[in-house]
Amino acid sequence: MGTIEELTASVKAQGDVVRALKADKKPKDDPEMVAALKKLTDLKKELEEASKPVETNPFVKTRGELDDVATRRFFYRQAFAIYGGTAGFYTYGPPGSALKANILAAWRKHFVIEENLLEIEDPTIMPHDVLKTSGHVERFNDFMVKDVKQEDKFYRADKLLEEEMERRIKLPATTEEDRVKYTKDLTAADSFTKEELGAKLKEYGIKAPETGNDLTDPYEFNLMFPTPIGPSGMLQGYLRPETAQGIFLNYKFCAEQNNDKMPFGVAQIGKSYRNEIAPRGGLVRQREFTQAEIEFFVKPGDKKFDKFRTVRHLKIPMLSSEVQLKGQPSFVKALGEAVDDGTIANETLGYFIGRVYMFLEEVGVKSEHLRFRQHLPTEMAHYACDCWDAEIEVSTGWMETVGIADRSAFDLTVHAEKTKVDLFAQEKLEVPETVEVVSMAKKAGALLGKDFKKEGVRVRGFLEGLKVEEARALEDRVKAEGKSEINVGGDKFTVTKDHVVFDIKKETKTSRNYVPNVIEPSFGIDRIFTAVLEHSYYARPSDPEEKEKEKIVRGVLGLSAAVAPYKAIIMPLDQRVSANETYQAMEGELRRGFAHRGINYKVDDSGATIGKRYARNDELGVPLAITVDFDSIGMGEDKALVRTVTLRERDTLTQVRMPVGDVAETVARIIMQQATWAEVQRSYSEVKNAASAAIGAGDGGGAGGSSQSAPAGGGSGG
Amino acid sequence: MGTIEELTASVKAQGDVVRALKADKKPKDDPEMVAALKKLTDLKKELEEASKPVETNPFVKTRGELDDVATRRFFYRQAFAIYGGTAGFYTYGPPGSALKANILAAWRKHFVIEENLLEIEDPTIMPHDVLKTSGHVERFNDFMVKDVKQEDKFYRADKLLEEEMERRIKLPATTEEDRVKYTKDLTAADSFTKEELGAKLKEYGIKAPETGNDLTDPYEFNLMFPTPIGPSGMLQGYLRPETAQGIFLNYKFCAEQNNDKMPFGVAQIGKSYRNEIAPRGGLVRQREFTQAEIEFFVKPGDKKFDKFRTVRHLKIPMLSSEVQLKGQPSFVKALGEAVDDGTIANETLGYFIGRVYMFLEEVGVKSEHLRFRQHLPTEMAHYACDCWDAEIEVSTGWMETVGIADRSAFDLTVHAEKTKVDLFAQEKLEVPETVEVVSMAKKAGALLGKDFKKEGVRVRGFLEGLKVEEARALEDRVKAEGKSEINVGGDKFTVTKDHVVFDIKKETKTSRNYVPNVIEPSFGIDRIFTAVLEHSYYARPSDPEEKEKEKIVRGVLGLSAAVAPYKAIIMPLDQRVSANETYQAMEGELRRGFAHRGINYKVDDSGATIGKRYARNDELGVPLAITVDFDSIGMGEDKALVRTVTLRERDTLTQVRMPVGDVAETVARIIMQQATWAEVQRSYSEVKNAASAAIGAGDGGGAGGSSQSAPAGGGSGG
Repeated sequence: MGTIEELTASVKAQGDVVRALKADKKPKDDPEMVAALKKLTDLKKELEEASKPVETNPFVKTRGELDDVATRRFFYRQAFAIYGGTAGFYTYGPPGSALKANILAAWRKHFVIEENLLEIEDPTIMPHDVLKTSGHVERFNDFMVKDVKQEDKFYRADKLLEEEMERRIKLPATTEEDRVKYTKDLTAADSFTKEELGAKLKEYGIKAPETGNDLTDPYEFNLMFPTPIGPSGMLQGYLRPETAQGIFLNYKFCAEQNNDKMPFGVAQIGKSYRNEIAPRGGLVRQREFTQAEIEFFVKPGDKKFDKFRTVRHLKIPMLSSEVQLKGQPSFVKALGEAVDDGTIANETLGYFIGRVYMFLEEVGVKSEHLRFRQHLPTEMAHYACDCWDAEIEVSTGWMETVGIADRSAFDLTVHAEKTKVDLFAQEKLEVPETVEVVSMAKKAGALLGKDFKKEGVRVRGFLEGLKVEEARALEDRVKAEGKSEINVGGDKFTVTKDHVVFDIKKETKTSRNYVPNVIEPSFGIDRIFTAVLEHSYYARPSDPEEKEKEKIVRGVLGLSAAVAPYKAIIMPLDQRVSANETYQAMEGELRRGFAHRGINYKVDDSGATIGKRYARNDELGVPLAITVDFDSIGMGEDKALVRTVTLRERDTLTQVRMPVGDVAETVARIIMQQATWAEVQRSYSEVKNAASAAIGAGDGGGAGGSSQSAPAGGGSGG
Repeated sequence: MGTIEELTASVKAQGDVVRALKADKKPKDDPEMVAALKKLTDLKKELEEASKPVETNPFVKTRGELDDVATRRFFYRQAFAIYGGTAGFYTYGPPGSALKANILAAWRKHFVIEENLLEIEDPTIMPHDVLKTSGHVERFNDFMVKDVKQEDKFYRADKLLEEEMERRIKLPATTEEDRVKYTKDLTAADSFTKEELGAKLKEYGIKAPETGNDLTDPYEFNLMFPTPIGPSGMLQGYLRPETAQGIFLNYKFCAEQNNDKMPFGVAQIGKSYRNEIAPRGGLVRQREFTQAEIEFFVKPGDKKFDKFRTVRHLKIPMLSSEVQLKGQPSFVKALGEAVDDGTIANETLGYFIGRVYMFLEEVGVKSEHLRFRQHLPTEMAHYACDCWDAEIEVSTGWMETVGIADRSAFDLTVHAEKTKVDLFAQEKLEVPETVEVVSMAKKAGALLGKDFKKEGVRVRGFLEGLKVEEARALEDRVKAEGKSEINVGGDKFTVTKDHVVFDIKKETKTSRNYVPNVIEPSFGIDRIFTAVLEHSYYARPSDPEEKEKEKIVRGVLGLSAAVAPYKAIIMPLDQRVSANETYQAMEGELRRGFAHRGINYKVDDSGATIGKRYARNDELGVPLAITVDFDSIGMGEDKALVRTVTLRERDTLTQVRMPVGDVAETVARIIMQQATWAEVQRSYSEVKNAASAAIGAGDGGGAGGSSQSAPAGGGSGG
């Protein structure tokens, strides 16, 4: 197979051959004609194949299988399914809800506990004033376009542009120069103004995807869900667009709990809402989603951070603003170097980039499909002064998953201005400062009250509010002219040299107030969930002994024990075992052992073969399976095996045999990462010949080594 | 002090004495007159004192102190405080948020894991159709009254009636007969119709509490928060009024995951919303609150439950519908007996009452302030057929906290009818049933198509939909009359004896479909949180050596280690210790040990005395305090104590000394209930003379036994 250029040339040449034969009036069934036509067809097919966009993303191939598992096993589904579904809303079913809860538990441990953050829970409904101040009432908009002929068809203008750019970038015919241009427009799509977007849609001739009709010009749509608070309808509320605002509102009270020490961080986990125009993309673009956000308050100008040394060495794939603007690919750099050379603005930002990287790896994101992209100057949110997104590659491309922004002092400043509540931190001055303070001399102050009556207080307030140099100038003026007119909030008063006598005192200040800056790592938990599922899914190679027609996909979720929805599955080998009293006692002991330790487990005592049941639980990502076989209940030959069970590890397909009493603690130690599977294997005897059965090869599969000892006519061999 | 009757008589008698003296024209300064008047005043005061309502609720006394702790330490505050606050919304601060999360974690362990429930997460926004079907659009109302002169003053009509009844019940002058009447109206207030409520408000002359003005008649106000979904405004949404509906919507998908086995339970934890008319009562009546609900699906008519035997023996305080209607007090009965004698409707309901009782005790509700109240027939929700509320006594009275309802098949039935989706369970019939099935004879069926053309299918559908006896009757009729007219959905057709030839077949059914019934335990988590705080708070007796003027309340939250927000506090004895390198290494080791185990801890290295810091952390409910003293860092006399610390238990005020390396595991074992404090005390040497210092007696307090070994001039003695 040649290059596209070579193939194009070959097709053209072979076309000429065919045309020449036709010109010679060769009949269609002439062997030479037949051969020439066949060759042309083959070459055309080859060219078509070569012209297809090259797919380098490994998750595209398995996405269909994963979607099937996700729906069939109820990891999640579109919400309100029995009512036909509502776009942008999803339900997490039992394994999905458990996986999500485990990701959140890992987050709490990694951030709240290890970073000693203060966690709060603020309401999801917020009153208008708060979101007016934060800028969301005015600026939390997307640009919407409508189909000019079908006004119920809405689209997000930037998404249409992005999709068109992605399509064009993948076309083989695209030149390198165009690719750079498209990549720039792709990156900048969500930062274009209304006018810029409109111009781009026109430039690329983008139409309504469903009908091919023209589109309207883009216009703003506010993405907050409005709702009235109380019965009068007087108090406008909104569902919060981010959890961050709740933290800013409580900054003061949290600072108090931290004894007013800086720096410190506050975290919040909870639902946020975006009334998306036309949500597609499954879990990734929901109207209701779960955020976990940290606001880490620091002193402005002092974003050095002692703990940064613990992450300096981490080598991180980065896509800086600079390389994006040049249309260049990402590069890998150690965090220390990136902060030193100014790629990353400061140590605190760099520290959280490192911690986010570690967290994502820990819950199961593959680091080779993870990069940190810096926002372009044009796409920065209205509050941010530097921002990096953790992007994860999934089947739909690179997905923004965590934003790590330096929001400067924006939020605390605007809330303090609006509410007149001090949202300051205080720092001790190493060298106390001496400042001059204006106050009235005693006699002059008394005279103000006497001469101006109840207006005296206002006049005094005005005079004592003057800056030192203004006060001295006024004093000089009245001394020279005898009197002067002053303007107090629009009212004019004449003051004499007896009124204007200041007593300018020196005061020593030992502390200084400042509004803290804030570094914000903001996590889209549903997106992390998506990435963890995509990165952990794999299809087990088929068993070579399996009959061709029975070959089906054996999907496995290779989730870590820490995040897996269920940690262990209890399985009697078959219905004769499950009916046995010894089994029942053992099941009870296992249940109690797991429940006592708070370990989520399942029992699978259905009639399916052991192999099918292994396969079924591999799909759920259950890392460990406990099988109770005939040996376990004293119906095997080796009576020493009574009250032992086999424990099978999902990914290696290896099994060990251990006393039932050891199981719950062993599982607990693996979850807590206090023991590895290799260590467990060294402590207990391995069960041989288990691999084939363990794949779940249909009805022929037995339960590992145990099947040999089944009574005659019983559990079929492996 | 006599009884009220005696005192009333004495006041009257003394009044007569005074009147007699006045009749004698005694002057006011006559000694006899002065003495008589003084006696009258004293008697009146005594009567007034005796007439005050008697307060038997122990939580009223400490509520003020607890409120102070809750706000000052930021367990919770009214939300949007810097914006002036919004009624019905609260923010949980760091310790409150952690306590709530721990209560939820205990709930998950107690119910989801131990009962092997399927947990799901459904959206908080729901489309109109769902809530129309469930009855909430029409029936989720409160009755509102307005002040006739000030229309911005709203009240809940039932709450006004309840408050008036509570006031009247407490009046000493109330007769036993009236008390019974008021108690009945109090209990029934929230189940009265609009008209009944209006009549009661009139009967008792209830006015607007703030102004004394008249009130309007009661009218309905729907308590759901409405919000539009999507940009068109065409799709009406609401914030969900309960988490339960999300479970019913997913019943089918959950049943599949459970291999369609019955019974089984589904759980959901999350926010629910009620747009309260005039929320008061703090955390107890919020517009946004956290629910944890279980829907336990059972076969109708088979609510026997094997696990009921595990709770039969539990003796539970009950307030059955019967005793309430008679105005009688609660009684204590074993669950087994209550189910046997019909007080509780069935075993499944009884089982969950028992499990709820155990859960509430486990998280810190005192069982002597807990009772289960049965709903009156008149107050049952529209979907329920029996319901018991777990009520907990707190400072504001008895608070409904958990509802355990038998919702019968209401919800699944209405959703199935509306959506035409089967929400059935299937059961195998022990004895297969033979049923007759109506179908058309082949020839007649063909003739229908021929004669009625495209309407043939409808006509055939109608005929095959007839019951066996109807089909036979029609067959007989056309045989006799030659033809007959039938009405198919409003259209009339004439059928002949050639059309109406049935082939009535016998079919054997081995299974039967049914709509499951559901038992619903529904938990108000914010209310449990309130109860746990009130029941765990106590004030430490003052230290007798403390100076009178320094006597302040030493509040303690006696929370169990499992739910306490922070499990341990790390404290250097003073700033000389905290500056020491050995201390810093020990602090690092402790931090890593806690973080690794996911244990929430705090460090308190502020300059306050050790006693003050103990007191400060007692208020937060921290069960264990680790102190690093001079001995710990090698500055004491006994070098054997280097790298040991003291561990102090909050409630007993006792301390032990242990190697720093043992601390994290010891704390973990106490949290997991794998070790008691008494066992820890047996394993390590006790630190004597610690009690007084441990109370936190201000600046004079030292760190237990360690202070003796402080360097000269150092940490002051205990």
